[in-house]
Amino acid sequence: MKPTIAIIGGNGQMGRWFTRFFEDQGLEVLVADVGSPRTSQEVAAEADVVILAVPIPKVTEVAREVAPHLSPHAALMDLTSVKQRPMAVMMSAFPGEVVGTHPLFGPGEATIEGRTMVLCQGRGERWFQWLQDLLTQAGARVKITTAAEHDRLMAVVQGLAHFILIAFGTVIRDLGVSLEDLEEFSTPTFATLHNLTRRLLSQDAKLYACIQLQNPANRIALRALEGAVADILYFIQRQDADGLVRLIEELK
Amino acid sequence: MKPTIAIIGGNGQMGRWFTRFFEDQGLEVLVADVGSPRTSQEVAAEADVVILAVPIPKVTEVAREVAPHLSPHAALMDLTSVKQRPMAVMMSAFPGEVVGTHPLFGPGEATIEGRTMVLCQGRGERWFQWLQDLLTQAGARVKITTAAEHDRLMAVVQGLAHFILIAFGTVIRDLGVSLEDLEEFSTPTFATLHNLTRRLLSQDAKLYACIQLQNPANRIALRALEGAVADILYFIQRQDADGLVRLIEELK
Repeated sequence: MKPTIAIIGGNGQMGRWFTRFFEDQGLEVLVADVGSPRTSQEVAAEADVVILAVPIPKVTEVAREVAPHLSPHAALMDLTSVKQRPMAVMMSAFPGEVVGTHPLFGPGEATIEGRTMVLCQGRGERWFQWLQDLLTQAGARVKITTAAEHDRLMAVVQGLAHFILIAFGTVIRDLGVSLEDLEEFSTPTFATLHNLTRRLLSQDAKLYACIQLQNPANRIALRALEGAVADILYFIQRQDADGLVRLIEELK
Repeated sequence: MKPTIAIIGGNGQMGRWFTRFFEDQGLEVLVADVGSPRTSQEVAAEADVVILAVPIPKVTEVAREVAPHLSPHAALMDLTSVKQRPMAVMMSAFPGEVVGTHPLFGPGEATIEGRTMVLCQGRGERWFQWLQDLLTQAGARVKITTAAEHDRLMAVVQGLAHFILIAFGTVIRDLGVSLEDLEEFSTPTFATLHNLTRRLLSQDAKLYACIQLQNPANRIALRALEGAVADILYFIQRQDADGLVRLIEELK
């Protein structure tokens, strides 16, 4: 029998994306969100797989709200960008199967084909295996890892990368250089970096703030960034060309 | 009559690129470099347009070396990534026509078509106009500005952008995250940023060190970067989600 999916927070961007995704797989999807006709508890009670598609700071509250209503045979899952804390919350709120997921793509993607989806096994085999098979058959690249390892890698892949782009955007704004001049005098490298920055800044600011604030591993990456900035500035301030050349060559 | 071009430092990457470019335009190009059969002074004496294709720290020495040998009707030009200092050097070394140029592309480009070339008028009209026409007819986007304005913009387009990528590469190395893991768990944004970084780091470290050290306007951009990093960290350290959301939204 085909499982029924409940998506809590189903009106958010990723919630809508996965509603469509599961429906395209021929599954019934029940959706709850603020102001929806049915409450989170109602849809959670009827589903085999309950997916929390809420922002990271909401996971604790919503997991505790719905968990008592889940069937003991159901699975509780999330879609958030960090994994240690949300999984710990889901594990303590619900005694049944738990899977943490993180889609490494945004709601702008047309299909899941070739996109990466990280899975972290919380508790249980059955729904973990089901999800892995479903995603793989749909063409996704499924990566399985622990919550701690996920967060350690995402501190670089998301935390550090986004931090750098936000800083880049801040400097361009602060220097008051006109966007027209920047475009007219652009290099291929600058154009790519500037486009990445503008695309990131055009998206959901709350999501990007959460990604900065909620991953405990970011702290180490950001401390390393402060160190790297200081190292490069050291050579620039001393006009030490040889030192800077060596620093760059050691990165090859 | 067609002008004769001399390229001093013609065996470097951009020297070779422009040798081929001018030859493709049907012009005679005389090349001098360390160990070449003819000296810089010899080729400079026979040319109508003398182009210094040497690294920024070499411009002063080479300009003074060749300038006394130039015809008073010739033009002295350069190809360096900063413009204020090299142009001041050329202007004081040679009393005739002077043009500063900065190709905003690397030696990997097949043609000049659609690529941007910045021109700064030092002294005189004739060769400045000739170069502008030649480049435009070859399909380049020619941008004319002052040396100071060029350096102010390049402090962002090159100085800041490269600084950020070098810092990003340094952090990834320092954290000891494997490149394999980063590729496996990559997002589209991270993959693009990481590719930009690796491409930059695979190129001439001396050139990138010069771009950091030789532009006097970089100092302001890098001070702004230190400020931006501190501002973002302020909100992260205080776990101030609202503050960070506001910071990101103000950049839209």
